[in-house]
Amino acid sequence: MFNNRIKVRDLLSTDETEQEVIVMGWVRTFRNNQFIALNDGSTNNNIQVVVELGLLDEATLKRITTGASLKVTGKVVASLGKGQRVEVKASSVEILGDCDADKFPLQPKKHSLEFLREIAHLRFRTNTFGSIFRIRHSLAFATHKFFNDKGFIYLHTPIITASDAEGAGEMFKVTTLPFDAPPRNEDGSINYKEDFFGKGTNLTVSGQLEGELGAMAFSEIYTFGPTFRAENSNTTRHLAEFWMIEPEMAFYDIEDNMNLAEEFIRYLIQYAIDNNREDIEFLDQRLTEEEKQKPQNERSELGLFEKLEFVINNKFERITYTDAIDILLESPFYKKKKFKYDVKWGIDLQSEHERYLVEKHFKKPVIVTGYPKDIKSFYMRLNEDGKTVAAMDILAPGIGEIVGGSQREERLEKLEQRMREMHVPIDEMSYYLDTRRFGTVPHAGFGLGFERMVQFVTGMTNIRDVIPFARTPKNCEF
Amino acid sequence: MFNNRIKVRDLLSTDETEQEVIVMGWVRTFRNNQFIALNDGSTNNNIQVVVELGLLDEATLKRITTGASLKVTGKVVASLGKGQRVEVKASSVEILGDCDADKFPLQPKKHSLEFLREIAHLRFRTNTFGSIFRIRHSLAFATHKFFNDKGFIYLHTPIITASDAEGAGEMFKVTTLPFDAPPRNEDGSINYKEDFFGKGTNLTVSGQLEGELGAMAFSEIYTFGPTFRAENSNTTRHLAEFWMIEPEMAFYDIEDNMNLAEEFIRYLIQYAIDNNREDIEFLDQRLTEEEKQKPQNERSELGLFEKLEFVINNKFERITYTDAIDILLESPFYKKKKFKYDVKWGIDLQSEHERYLVEKHFKKPVIVTGYPKDIKSFYMRLNEDGKTVAAMDILAPGIGEIVGGSQREERLEKLEQRMREMHVPIDEMSYYLDTRRFGTVPHAGFGLGFERMVQFVTGMTNIRDVIPFARTPKNCEF
Repeated sequence: MFNNRIKVRDLLSTDETEQEVIVMGWVRTFRNNQFIALNDGSTNNNIQVVVELGLLDEATLKRITTGASLKVTGKVVASLGKGQRVEVKASSVEILGDCDADKFPLQPKKHSLEFLREIAHLRFRTNTFGSIFRIRHSLAFATHKFFNDKGFIYLHTPIITASDAEGAGEMFKVTTLPFDAPPRNEDGSINYKEDFFGKGTNLTVSGQLEGELGAMAFSEIYTFGPTFRAENSNTTRHLAEFWMIEPEMAFYDIEDNMNLAEEFIRYLIQYAIDNNREDIEFLDQRLTEEEKQKPQNERSELGLFEKLEFVINNKFERITYTDAIDILLESPFYKKKKFKYDVKWGIDLQSEHERYLVEKHFKKPVIVTGYPKDIKSFYMRLNEDGKTVAAMDILAPGIGEIVGGSQREERLEKLEQRMREMHVPIDEMSYYLDTRRFGTVPHAGFGLGFERMVQFVTGMTNIRDVIPFARTPKNCEF
Repeated sequence: MFNNRIKVRDLLSTDETEQEVIVMGWVRTFRNNQFIALNDGSTNNNIQVVVELGLLDEATLKRITTGASLKVTGKVVASLGKGQRVEVKASSVEILGDCDADKFPLQPKKHSLEFLREIAHLRFRTNTFGSIFRIRHSLAFATHKFFNDKGFIYLHTPIITASDAEGAGEMFKVTTLPFDAPPRNEDGSINYKEDFFGKGTNLTVSGQLEGELGAMAFSEIYTFGPTFRAENSNTTRHLAEFWMIEPEMAFYDIEDNMNLAEEFIRYLIQYAIDNNREDIEFLDQRLTEEEKQKPQNERSELGLFEKLEFVINNKFERITYTDAIDILLESPFYKKKKFKYDVKWGIDLQSEHERYLVEKHFKKPVIVTGYPKDIKSFYMRLNEDGKTVAAMDILAPGIGEIVGGSQREERLEKLEQRMREMHVPIDEMSYYLDTRRFGTVPHAGFGLGFERMVQFVTGMTNIRDVIPFARTPKNCEF
């Protein structure tokens, strides 16, 4: 048995001095041949290990470099230094793994985010990414806890799918056919019957449709899994592979849906504040430093912590799409022709429009409902006006759309009519329509882009910095 | 707002009679034009709704059929019938969705599992699959809770990968290239530079290697995500898409690894017993019925509940591979030539061998360690004998291998030597070797096949019955 260490996080909060402990981790810094700052990833704070003169020979002391891994045995003592309550007075220091300081890419200095993206396998060892991925973990756990406590069933909807009906974007093909000489039918077309699944298959863009099948039995389900878009978007907001949370609830209308989504987002933020205060504070400071580089008028009015507190303490604004268009048309931005894209009823709101509503007009998260049916998916419930659907998007400051959802069309005839109008293959979707044939109920659901949520809580502006190994056009490293 | 119902599960445990409630769900049965058994998926138990004579007209009564969905308002009263403490005396019954009894595939009778697999979108509404997927949910939540409580970080390792180094099996290609006229290099080979990621990519077979990168910073991480094998195995034990849990721990040796895996499995079972007792009892009865169809000598000695209790209460047996071979060679099975495959030191244990050890010899879960290096992966730590590696497999009764893991080779030179011997591309894996170059530490990890675990706890013999929508050769429905 080797695993008899105490974690740094636990050690730093102990009051029991004089206890013998074993602590293991990686050297962050080594000062004066005497003070080792050791980190094990459980917190950004290091435990100070004090090496008394004469404990180690010269050769060993030279091997204690940034990045080296150590096993330290010693006694917990009250610290005389600033910034920590306790430190460890070493009785032995064993070097588990050396780290050649000349070759180690992570030096004890500030590296650019761009550089760290290229060494994503090592960036976990920095304070910034330590904080980000501990927060990401917390938000994932909080997601499961939130839904579990409410009695939702976590449903693993399929990743490989033969359906392309959701129409949410370009899809990746999944295949075992050889490119060089794929089997062909007599007419020359590819014979997908020979493929692994006996038909053409893709990576899922959404688990919603399957989620609905589950909700029609368990009332309330949620998915939390990877989703894929083969869109050639090289932006700070898009990934080809990202994680999405999609709850789906029977017996919910659009208002119930909004209430749940708002409660969920607040819960996530509160959970992170309660469980990752130090990490958020670290990122808050980081962001403040970064903001100082910007011209005064581009700086955020609120710090990261303030922004999170603000979201928790203020109800989201709820407006209709029609109201949103009116607000935009009345805005000084529109009148001064500052929008790149035109504004009129029927358009899909562009990022610049969403940001105006959220950041300039309301200055808080906004839920927009009642979008024109022609810009939304076939499964959204048609409103009484015959023109709009019971869709809802939640827009967040600095992020844009963070949630998209709707009440679903539960009326078989109306659903089939929309499918025909939108050229969705009704025959292939017969299983989906069964939910409307056999005991249909009002139901609703939404999708929350998990990385966007992590961005919101960490204040990171590039989505590639909040997922361990980003997949983007022409980039699939690690 | 529509969502003002009380869930059946909560209703059935209430002591507050005389309260007005709204309950919604699907009709399971309707007896004597008076007693509706209503279910909402929160439990297999139904709430009995009593419709007094004269409350509903004849036409409405006729629409209350199996599968129809209802909104019932009424008063909670103590039940006079057997099997429930309370029932709802309806003051109004609203039909939310009809269900044509002649067309509804789920009749109130016993259906075969094969038939239900074909209507996987409806089987959630049966008692058997209600229980299975509530248990699956619990096991998933328990997984997150177990690791979160220990301070592990949940790491989302990538699904799309350019690496095929893990060598765990056949892979699915992921691509956006057109089959009909793929771009080619001058020599005629496919030009993957034109593909979405600028190179050939696949679906992951394991998150382990990326998990190790995380463990080298956070000490303890786990993954829980989908993994893929393009193997043409049409068995009751294989899926092309399945979910795997892969913890990876710095500062762990093989013994620490075994201890964690054993604790984890016990925790999952205990959690299910504590949270899903009724569902396990239902499946226990189901299994008992099924066993009665078998000849006496093929029946299990233990019922489902007994089997689970047994695993919780007995330490797993720990033996070396060399001991396992000796036991097999000494067995009456071997002497009577009952094994199909030969037994000698160096073989990969076959399913029949594993089952003999677990079901006949030890009659409990067994952890086998110290496998010959030639039948295991390059990253497993070489033992002192130079012949075996610090691998471990956990074998469970009725399931076979449920966990595979190892201590990882943390010594750079030894790892590179194994990679050369096994033709693993060292250059492509440079990022992985960085973990051994810069502060390497003893570390270990394992993978648990989530569906196998769900099978174990539910007693289901076909793996297709424990995942919502199974992906198998020539089958990708829903």
